[in-house]
Amino acid sequence: MNKQGILLIISGPSGSGKGTIVERLCEKNNFSLSISATTRKPREYEKDGVHYFFHTREEFEKMRDRKELLEWAEFCGNYYGTPRKYVTEQLMAGNNVILEIEVQGALQVKKIYPEGVLIFMVPPNLEELGNRLTKRGTEDKETINKRLRRALEEMELVEEYDYLVINDTVEQATEDMLTIVAAEKMKCSRNKNIKKIFKGEM
Amino acid sequence: MNKQGILLIISGPSGSGKGTIVERLCEKNNFSLSISATTRKPREYEKDGVHYFFHTREEFEKMRDRKELLEWAEFCGNYYGTPRKYVTEQLMAGNNVILEIEVQGALQVKKIYPEGVLIFMVPPNLEELGNRLTKRGTEDKETINKRLRRALEEMELVEEYDYLVINDTVEQATEDMLTIVAAEKMKCSRNKNIKKIFKGEM
Repeated sequence: MNKQGILLIISGPSGSGKGTIVERLCEKNNFSLSISATTRKPREYEKDGVHYFFHTREEFEKMRDRKELLEWAEFCGNYYGTPRKYVTEQLMAGNNVILEIEVQGALQVKKIYPEGVLIFMVPPNLEELGNRLTKRGTEDKETINKRLRRALEEMELVEEYDYLVINDTVEQATEDMLTIVAAEKMKCSRNKNIKKIFKGEM
Repeated sequence: MNKQGILLIISGPSGSGKGTIVERLCEKNNFSLSISATTRKPREYEKDGVHYFFHTREEFEKMRDRKELLEWAEFCGNYYGTPRKYVTEQLMAGNNVILEIEVQGALQVKKIYPEGVLIFMVPPNLEELGNRLTKRGTEDKETINKRLRRALEEMELVEEYDYLVINDTVEQATEDMLTIVAAEKMKCSRNKNIKKIFKGEM
């Protein structure tokens, strides 16, 4: 079987619990989180190549123009993007790479790297999503309602995704992610050298 | 999640161990084997609707012309085919249906029923395939060599398949099949009503 890792591109509404599932996966030794490039200033505790790859605007624009980014966007005057190099190195080393990213960026990545697997994560239903956002206690009712409307909007694009994971419990959703990776590794499109292996030539 | 079953279309060289894996899956209560239609005479122990659906040539040709067969072929003067009706009924009832079939028939089915999942099963390598065929003791050396050449020929079409399962041990290969089914059930293309479920409308 192909030893190369799988790029998992995960999206889903705020409150879907993506972050927790990603953390669980990264505790396993063959999963790693993609590291973003940014032009914003590092915070005191942030290390280059660990939390972000920090760049000047000029460097970032060069990377972008050389197609060295899988996706990029500008927020509040700073650039953010996903360097292809780090992702590729990890995949070649046999690690599965996780990219937690909003819908538009996710579709950008899939276009450039079609072998990437698009996963949309949702809570079991809208009511549960509302409950989770309320429990957090960090946002007022108006903001929560805005997030719920945004979740419904984002779901319009779910058909562009490969897989849907319903995050009912952390254990089940983590298991589902591992099932997806295991199945993807068996895809014939990822095992094109099988004829040679079969003949004993590799 | 979608409750509908998955149609698994399994091919692979003679000696790949498909039969054993299919048996193991059919011991589980949500897997059933597709039943073929044929115009050949039933053997003494064979029951209509259990081993085969037995038909006259006229009936079979009507089914074929009405596009009621997912695939069909003629061998030794008899027709054999896969009735769409039985498969559809099983899938709608939530059962996964297994179709063990050679490469040409498999590709025919996929064309008519693109939601079907094409799985190619192989032993770990050509040497192991030779060993398995020799161990069977049912064929002479020449026939075995012919089967090995045929296996290599069939593998030319492996890229048309969705998944590759390497049958190293029965346990692992059965597990792999279940992983594929579980991942396929999470495909967004199979969960188009998720927006309604999410909103609590279903």
